[in-house]
Parts: sequence; C-alpha cells; structure tokens
Amino acid sequence: MRVARLHRTDIVQPDGRQVHLYGAFRPPPDDYHAPSMPNGIYQRRWNPLRREWVLVAASRQARTFLPDRAHCPLCPSRAAHSSEIPASHFEAAVFENRFPAMVPGRSSGGGCEVVVYTEEHEGSFATLSPSALDRLAEVWTDRYRELINRRDVRYVFIFENRGEEVGVTLHHPHGQIYAYPFMPPVAAVELRRQSACLQCRLIADELSGRRRVLINDGGIVAYVPGYARWPYEVHVTTRTHREALPSLPPAGRQGLLSAMQRVARAYDRLFAVPMPYMMAMHQAPAGRPSAQAHLHVEFYPVLRDQGKLKYLAGSESGAGVFINDTLAEESADRLRPLFD
Amino acid sequence: MRVARLHRTDIVQPDGRQVHLYGAFRPPPDDYHAPSMPNGIYQRRWNPLRREWVLVAASRQARTFLPDRAHCPLCPSRAAHSSEIPASHFEAAVFENRFPAMVPGRSSGGGCEVVVYTEEHEGSFATLSPSALDRLAEVWTDRYRELINRRDVRYVFIFENRGEEVGVTLHHPHGQIYAYPFMPPVAAVELRRQSACLQCRLIADELSGRRRVLINDGGIVAYVPGYARWPYEVHVTTRTHREALPSLPPAGRQGLLSAMQRVARAYDRLFAVPMPYMMAMHQAPAGRPSAQAHLHVEFYPVLRDQGKLKYLAGSESGAGVFINDTLAEESADRLRPLFD
Repeated sequence: MRVARLHRTDIVQPDGRQVHLYGAFRPPPDDYHAPSMPNGIYQRRWNPLRREWVLVAASRQARTFLPDRAHCPLCPSRAAHSSEIPASHFEAAVFENRFPAMVPGRSSGGGCEVVVYTEEHEGSFATLSPSALDRLAEVWTDRYRELINRRDVRYVFIFENRGEEVGVTLHHPHGQIYAYPFMPPVAAVELRRQSACLQCRLIADELSGRRRVLINDGGIVAYVPGYARWPYEVHVTTRTHREALPSLPPAGRQGLLSAMQRVARAYDRLFAVPMPYMMAMHQAPAGRPSAQAHLHVEFYPVLRDQGKLKYLAGSESGAGVFINDTLAEESADRLRPLFD
Repeated sequence: MRVARLHRTDIVQPDGRQVHLYGAFRPPPDDYHAPSMPNGIYQRRWNPLRREWVLVAASRQARTFLPDRAHCPLCPSRAAHSSEIPASHFEAAVFENRFPAMVPGRSSGGGCEVVVYTEEHEGSFATLSPSALDRLAEVWTDRYRELINRRDVRYVFIFENRGEEVGVTLHHPHGQIYAYPFMPPVAAVELRRQSACLQCRLIADELSGRRRVLINDGGIVAYVPGYARWPYEVHVTTRTHREALPSLPPAGRQGLLSAMQRVARAYDRLFAVPMPYMMAMHQAPAGRPSAQAHLHVEFYPVLRDQGKLKYLAGSESGAGVFINDTLAEESADRLRPLFD
C-alpha cells in the first residue's frame, strides 16, 4: 500500500491566484508571463422562488473558447507560449480558475479550481496511464482535504465536464473543483437527515438485485441506478460506508478511480464516439459528520443514442421532472459487455 | 370583454387518443388513417437520492425527428398525408402525444398533450396573429380546467420548447402540456407553505425597484428577476394575485399572452436569430387553494450571446447551482429597447 504523499509545490501568480504543481516539474521558460484574471463581478444572489443560490460571474463571457493546440492554456509553458502552468514540464497541476464562478474574498465567496490531469494534451480521463490515475487520486484527495478545511467553504465539489456538448471549451484532459460557501441544493437533498445511510441501503439493494450492477470488485461498486435520470447514468461508490476520499486508503482511492476509468472507457465504446458526459463526485460537507455522507461518483452521459443528445427541456427545467427514454436494466445490459 | 367559450370538437382516434379541435374545422380527406401510438413502457420510478420521480418512457426513442414540411404531423391532413390532426383545415388543436412521457392508466399515470397553435406551418408563438393568440389563451384555459379536475392529475404544466437547441423535433408552432399525477419538485419548492404570497412580494419588489421591469401594463408585469438563472430569463405574471388562467377574465388572459408574445419577439431581436427557449407556465395545483399559487410564466432562453449556448454542466446538474454570466440589470437594459 502506498502511503507517501505526493510532493506539492505552491506558486502564487502575480494576480494572486494559486498554482499547485504535483510531483516533479521543470521551471517555465525565461519569457514566462502569467496570464492574469480579468476584472469581473462575482456575486451570489438568493433565488427565493427556487430557494437556491445563483452565482453571478459577469466576466466569464470572454473566456478562452476552444483554442488550437498551440495556444492551449493547460499545456506546459514554452518559449513564446505562457500557459496557466508556470512550468515547462509537470505531472499534474491545479490552479485557481482565471474565469471563475466564485472568487474568495468577493461577495460570491468560495472558489474555483482547474485540475490538469496530465501535461499531455491529447487523451482524456479514459486514457490516463495507471500512474497518472494514481496521481490524480492523490491530487483530488489533497484538494478536498485542503478546501473542506477552509473557513469559508461548506462543500467541495469535484467534477468533470467532458465534450463540447456540455460546454467544454478546452480539450486538454482536465476537471474542476468548486468550493461552495453554502450547501448546494443537490447535496442538501442527498444529505437530508435520516436514521441510517441511504446510500448504503441503495448499494445493498443494487447488489442483491444484480440486474444493474456493472462492477463489484475490490470494495468498489458501479451500477446503473434503477431511478437513473440520464439514459446511461452510472454511479460508482465504495461498498462500505466512506465519507470522502481521505477516508479511503490510497489503494482504495486508486480502486475507485480505476473503476471510474472503466466506466469512461465503456462510454467511449457505447456509440463509438468520445462520450460527452458530466462526472459529479459527492462527498461529505464541512462541519460535523453526517450519517448520509457516503462518497459516490455520478456519471451523466448526455447521448441517448448515436448522434442523439438527451436535452433538458421544459419538463426537466420548468418542473424538475426528468424523462428517461431507456430502462435502467437495459442500459446496464448494453454497457456490461463494454467493460474491460 | 369576450365571454363566449371557444367551440370545441372532441374526436377519439382508433388507438384511443383524444383529439380536441378548437373553433372551425373541415373534415379530413377520405383516405385519412390516424397514426397510432407504438407500444412502450411507461413507468414512474422514485429517485430516493434526489427525492423526486423520474418518468421512464421507453418507446420515445423512435419519435418523429425534424420531418420535412410535407410530412409534418402537426399540419392539416390532406390526400396522401394523414397527420395527427383529423381535419383538412383547423384553427387550433390539442391531441394526446403519440410519444408521451406519461400515459393515463399505465403505471406512469398522468398524461401528455400537444397543443398546435395554428394550422400554419411557418412562424412561431412570436408571430401568431392577434386572433390566434386570443384563441390560444382560451385553449390553454380549457385544457388547464379540464386536466386539473381529472382525478389522477395533481399538477398541470403548460410549456413550450422552442428550437433545436432545446431538443425540438418539430418546427410547426406548438407547445405541450404535461399533466403530472404528482407534485413536481419545482412546484413543490415554489408552493412551500408561507404566510403570504411570495410571488406578490417579488412583483412588488421588482416594481418598486424598477431596474429590471420590462412591461407593466394592463395588470401584467414582465421583468428579468434579480435572481435569474439564465442570462436573459424573463418572468411574466399578473400584478394582482391570480391562481391560474381560469381566475382571469378573457381580456386578462389575452393581456398575459400578448405580453408573453412581446417577450418572445424581443428575444428574436436580441441576437437577430430565432431565440431557442423554454417557456414554463406555473399555476395552482389540484386540491385545496394555496396562498402561494400565483400564475406566472418563466422564459428560459438558452443563448447567452450570439451563437453561444448556456450549458447546464457540472455545477448545475451535479450540485444544483446555476452560474449566470450576466447581471440581471444589464440583461433588462439590453432587452428593454427591443420591446414593441
């Protein structure tokens, strides 16, 4: 079992944004000029009808949009190309988003980080090498641990948007972390007080039913939940109750990420195109322990068939009722043979 | 003030689906063969994590996708073209959806209707003639009144998806009605018990602030709410407390639809393209009166700029936190001069 923490180097950019380089790196070229955050308005506003916070971030309209590879802001810096990463070589990096939805110290509170999985521009989460995947497990764990302990942070949300169909503007393999200064609505509903852990019961139900289970291996379980909102939604979780990444040993975290990667690979095989998806990792909020906080990862792939997107339209957006064109059992049957 | 009800003719198709023709019509051609509903599985499943119903409708995958004009299922029927409307001429029509998300009598419960605004294939809600708009007001009122009194219906949701960007598969001007057999999550939150009507207070706040008001005329108010989730979200409502369309006199309903149409027209001018949007009408649920039920229409336009979609990605889908790139006050300033 690996226990050594990943080495981390902290750098503060001229505009005050933090960069964390994980593992080995080489300094940037001599002409490096850090990109700087544009002025903007960052607020949170209370929506009394929906009873939720809305984040207003009025400088993001100018954000980098699908740059060509030579101008990728997530690649290593080189002569005449200063990226977000002040290094000419790195293993993994995290930096505070230059076009954030929240900024610490502003009225929005909270913060937004970008997690660069690797210095390699090509590829995706699905194609990360085993060592890059293990490193990412430790990066996510480190970020969760640090952010959840910040006084202004209530919930740490690790996620990935993948594909232009979900609004991705950069192709370099990366994910994001939002550190919300309040409890987000989805977490509030999932963590509603109950006597026992709901997630534990749901996992037991799926395992005893078996019809929708995709992975049950090394303490990690993946399944298409019977109540999926998205046609090929998959949940990946720990079989026993674990609150968050730091509650797992490194080998357990590696097992989780490895299962997640198998899901992502199966998705890419499903319609023989890179599957656009959202990945959402739900972990314990800050503050006192909750019996309901059980680490789980939800994948929402947005294709319902070859070339056909699942749209969130009137029923989903205006009434909050999802319509799923597929039976979860059939989705599981279709995905299962695609797992390596 | 008009008081006469619109004349309605009810037809039952061979597969049992109801069609309602409003106003004058002419019978279909002799060779009319009604399209019939394919077999499918219709269920509702409880999502215990999100605490919401998910509708499973496993025959919709085959639904009609952007047919050319000659094959439009919402146009009048003619020789060799049997549409959903058993008439060779009609003014407005409503029929039970052939690819529904809910079917009465199945385990899903509830029902889904399609509202065809006019027999004219070209155009949109924004371009309906004044007489077609008045007719639509009465059609919506009739449908709400009938459906809300059905024993298996708890909430009647009138809405429109407009544009391929929100998944529209038919261009003929139309909207939809979902009659849910349960209280949808958005309605449940909005109608949470409070001592006074929240909507009344929000309207008063917007009117006294004035910064975000777009229309205040004839008892109808339209504004960009300060807590908008979408860049150019607009709410249209009655200045005084009205529960639902039937609580308004016909002239009041016409005023509401006319204001809605002005919003839709302003949207089409904003980026000089037909604006893709969702329109959601929130009205009183079935059962005993609620102090919170105040008729209002929410428009969610999905463009945040010319050619740029607002995506619902990780934060919105996985945490329930919306990020808005614009200030509501600036959106109102930009929309205001576009109103006729």
